[in-house]
Amino acid sequence: MTTTRTQARIEADKTVPMIHIYREFAATPAQLLRAHTDPELFARWVGPAGMGADIDYWDARDGGSWRYTAGSGDGEAAFRGCFHSVGPDRIVQTFTWEGMPDAVALETLTFEDLGDGRTRLHATSLCDSFEARDGWLASGMETGVNDGYAALDAMLESGTL
Amino acid sequence: MTTTRTQARIEADKTVPMIHIYREFAATPAQLLRAHTDPELFARWVGPAGMGADIDYWDARDGGSWRYTAGSGDGEAAFRGCFHSVGPDRIVQTFTWEGMPDAVALETLTFEDLGDGRTRLHATSLCDSFEARDGWLASGMETGVNDGYAALDAMLESGTL
Repeated sequence: MTTTRTQARIEADKTVPMIHIYREFAATPAQLLRAHTDPELFARWVGPAGMGADIDYWDARDGGSWRYTAGSGDGEAAFRGCFHSVGPDRIVQTFTWEGMPDAVALETLTFEDLGDGRTRLHATSLCDSFEARDGWLASGMETGVNDGYAALDAMLESGTL
Repeated sequence: MTTTRTQARIEADKTVPMIHIYREFAATPAQLLRAHTDPELFARWVGPAGMGADIDYWDARDGGSWRYTAGSGDGEAAFRGCFHSVGPDRIVQTFTWEGMPDAVALETLTFEDLGDGRTRLHATSLCDSFEARDGWLASGMETGVNDGYAALDAMLESGTL
């Protein structure tokens, strides 16, 4: 049996130190908003397959903040940030991997309604240097991105979301 | 009588859409940290001379948030953001002028101890495009920056801080 799965388009911006991620989902914008703001739902899909995520704190509102850990033991990684704004079709938040606590990215997620129950996610991640941005692109991040979105697809198909 | 006052150095970064502001103060890093985190002190110096600031909410800790208004009537402007991290020599926060609510900058303030009771402030403001960055630089922001820092100098001289 062969399976095909949708790959996210991950691109380096040509003029600013930003990563763009584009991905379509068989979901409404409201479903994608829930997937990114409800901590129990978010923990079920984010990151590489089998890694899991434990929410430490999560307050998805303008001026709220969030933190979660993934993996365990020596492989545990922690991520944290604050929610600058949370709206029906746009989330702006900061993002730090605690292994590099001084590196802070500004992330924007937009949900574009394509009609017929489909939505295009456009996620941007703005870094303070091209070196930092290129370091993220070289880190193997596409595995976590694509595994996570495949898990999100599965939740949509099963009606969990 | 002539008075001279220190002008901040305000520079456009050459490679990323960032503004740099450099300014030395006759202050310790701890005094500059207080000036930027204590809401009552902050409201006394920030912005153009005579404008004043009213703090709406302010929680200067990792994951906290802030909002203040300046001016009054038709001239009132509101600003808001979240504190990503607040440390003894570094603050990272988001910044939005509510007149352009979709424009979010990522700001970093660092306090470099120069010894002898002097500290160099380096503030950076990272925008998501060069157009947005250049718009800020063309907005007359230097008036608020320099008036504010002059007021901060006066608070240091008078022992208020």
